[in-house]
Amino acid sequence: MAAADLGYPAPVTSLGTADHDREVFAVHEGGKLTVSSRSRITSIEDLALTYTPGVAKVCLAIAAEPAMARRYTWAQRLVAVVTDGTAVLGLGDLGPVASLPVMEGKVCLFTELAGLSAVPIVLATTDVDEIVATVVRIAPSFGGINLEDISAPRCFEIERQLKERLSIPVMHDDQHGTAIVVLAALRNAARVTGRTLGDLRAVVVGAGASGIACARILLGAGIGDLAIADRQGIIHSGRTDLTSAKGEIGGLTNRGGYAGSFVDALAGADVLVGLSGGQIPEAVIASMAPNALVFALANPVPEVDPVMAARYAAVVATGRSDLPNQINNVLAFPGVFKGAFDAHATAITEGMKLAAAGALADVVGDDVRTDFVIPNPLDPRVVPAVSEAVAAAARAEGVTAD
Amino acid sequence: MAAADLGYPAPVTSLGTADHDREVFAVHEGGKLTVSSRSRITSIEDLALTYTPGVAKVCLAIAAEPAMARRYTWAQRLVAVVTDGTAVLGLGDLGPVASLPVMEGKVCLFTELAGLSAVPIVLATTDVDEIVATVVRIAPSFGGINLEDISAPRCFEIERQLKERLSIPVMHDDQHGTAIVVLAALRNAARVTGRTLGDLRAVVVGAGASGIACARILLGAGIGDLAIADRQGIIHSGRTDLTSAKGEIGGLTNRGGYAGSFVDALAGADVLVGLSGGQIPEAVIASMAPNALVFALANPVPEVDPVMAARYAAVVATGRSDLPNQINNVLAFPGVFKGAFDAHATAITEGMKLAAAGALADVVGDDVRTDFVIPNPLDPRVVPAVSEAVAAAARAEGVTAD
Repeated sequence: MAAADLGYPAPVTSLGTADHDREVFAVHEGGKLTVSSRSRITSIEDLALTYTPGVAKVCLAIAAEPAMARRYTWAQRLVAVVTDGTAVLGLGDLGPVASLPVMEGKVCLFTELAGLSAVPIVLATTDVDEIVATVVRIAPSFGGINLEDISAPRCFEIERQLKERLSIPVMHDDQHGTAIVVLAALRNAARVTGRTLGDLRAVVVGAGASGIACARILLGAGIGDLAIADRQGIIHSGRTDLTSAKGEIGGLTNRGGYAGSFVDALAGADVLVGLSGGQIPEAVIASMAPNALVFALANPVPEVDPVMAARYAAVVATGRSDLPNQINNVLAFPGVFKGAFDAHATAITEGMKLAAAGALADVVGDDVRTDFVIPNPLDPRVVPAVSEAVAAAARAEGVTAD
Repeated sequence: MAAADLGYPAPVTSLGTADHDREVFAVHEGGKLTVSSRSRITSIEDLALTYTPGVAKVCLAIAAEPAMARRYTWAQRLVAVVTDGTAVLGLGDLGPVASLPVMEGKVCLFTELAGLSAVPIVLATTDVDEIVATVVRIAPSFGGINLEDISAPRCFEIERQLKERLSIPVMHDDQHGTAIVVLAALRNAARVTGRTLGDLRAVVVGAGASGIACARILLGAGIGDLAIADRQGIIHSGRTDLTSAKGEIGGLTNRGGYAGSFVDALAGADVLVGLSGGQIPEAVIASMAPNALVFALANPVPEVDPVMAARYAAVVATGRSDLPNQINNVLAFPGVFKGAFDAHATAITEGMKLAAAGALADVVGDDVRTDFVIPNPLDPRVVPAVSEAVAAAARAEGVTAD
């Protein structure tokens, strides 16, 4: 069955052609971002209002009452998109300078979709302590920190330390953005097949940043059982080769007691979440339970051929924009930060992420179909729904500065 | 004689009134800056060009050839306005958060006057080594570093180390911006009174960041003689209480061998550059040589009453926008960074600063008068003139990345 037969939208047919490449480079000429002043400066009067001497009044007001900074500076609505360039897209360690176009693109999404300002901060260090110290020192310039494309396992420790040391929202998007969208899609996929998350046994293939975060959020949302596998196989208590992040998630998962390869665990499983980039053969998909939910999220080549998967699975999701059910973390991060800012949140909690996933699933609502378990990435209802849910959760948990 | 009698422009009469304060706070509501995307993102095609998958091509191109970053990222035209908030305007150590409105204002001037983008980076540390390490680590995000409102003597060491470690333009504006404008104005003041810099003996009162930088640039430009005084008096080789920055400038100045108070050195002097904030009595101004040039730059209250000074001096300059001959470093920094960026300069050298001052003086040209030795801060000829001169100097010195 061809993609078109499944009712998939038309692909971006120009992708990868020489014409498309030319257009890509043209869009990047001179960089993709601009900072501008919200008021013109054409007279001495303008200078006196925007700069000296007028500005002194505002500085003194904030010095006397630091909470005034939320009202009278741009930092309150400003996200730092921070990377060391070690895990850029699926391309690996390109370093800070070559990662900048991705970070600029991320900023474009914050500005265009959520009306926030953001700034790429690309770092000339890959040392965990140096990254943490640097971000802590520049943090008063920003209202939130979006960590991006930092390789595992350093990303876990960097995020943990920054959350501990800063009282502003901090989120590693590769982990939690993906996790939020996977949970939302899986919730709707369960619903459209007449089940709840608690009915499902899932296998996450890939124990990098996003795999571990998906496992965590699915456990937090009450999935029936879940096993997670890295390249050495299913993570279980008998393994002696685990990083601390893997050991920790191992202790929370795999009540079924699987060992060996993910292939063994997938036999009879309800859910596959592929975040590995490897390839999974047809026989393995065929061995899953009836009404299987297959999320093959490697990009641009999913772990499972989606057309083949559709022969066995009730729902197929990928990371691709030319197929239905695209798991794209642009569905999460703009609304999550907007909601956190709207509530003056001092952190992004598990509850706020679960709320984001719930709101995202609810955007689909009663329109849910097996080929529509998650909204289109640019659906204008998404950011308002996610941000309102996140802000409400922050207020309900009391994690706000007010 | 009242200011109006001297042909001074009308002051900003609303300054300091309750109405003006309200207007100041209204301008600051929500902050003064916005980051925006240079292209809209409303379709999957837009996403594919600006973000994934298209952006991967640009990242790989830069990874293969890092110089491509100059063409395809925004960093090439982006200034970091970096402070620790220790010397905010004349207000002192307000800390990073309360300094943000000034830094945002500075960014407004970069964007509005020079068409550059800039971002405030306010630091939660005042330690020299930590500031240097932090700026070095975030430097790949930016095309240049404007240090701002960092107290002396730390500002000297921070700038020195950053210039040594980074191959992008670095300038502490409180030092060199002021120095460039003072030199330009003094050059024209000498000219309008029939002299050259070499004919003049100057006394700089105040040995902070801007005082030392003014002394340095005046020496570099060939002033006849110059003495500089701090609160303890004239800096001379017999003093044992000097910081290293003061000791260094002491070794280069004061060929006249003055000791004691600046009052002694001002007797018969041609030039006063006041950068101290103290008050200088009428008798001291009266003791200067005929055709004295009095630059009383403390703001908002000059060291010398400008109306009184005009009774003795041929040229009076202040930092005030409601008086003629306003020494405002907005005349320098936008054009200096623009010129450095235009030339792909790897540093800002003494030669580039001298070129900036020369170009700034030349904007006045044959219109020079005793009450017009320096252009209006918003004169549209200034940034093009300064930037062209700076770029030409960078190319002539070979301090470019090309």
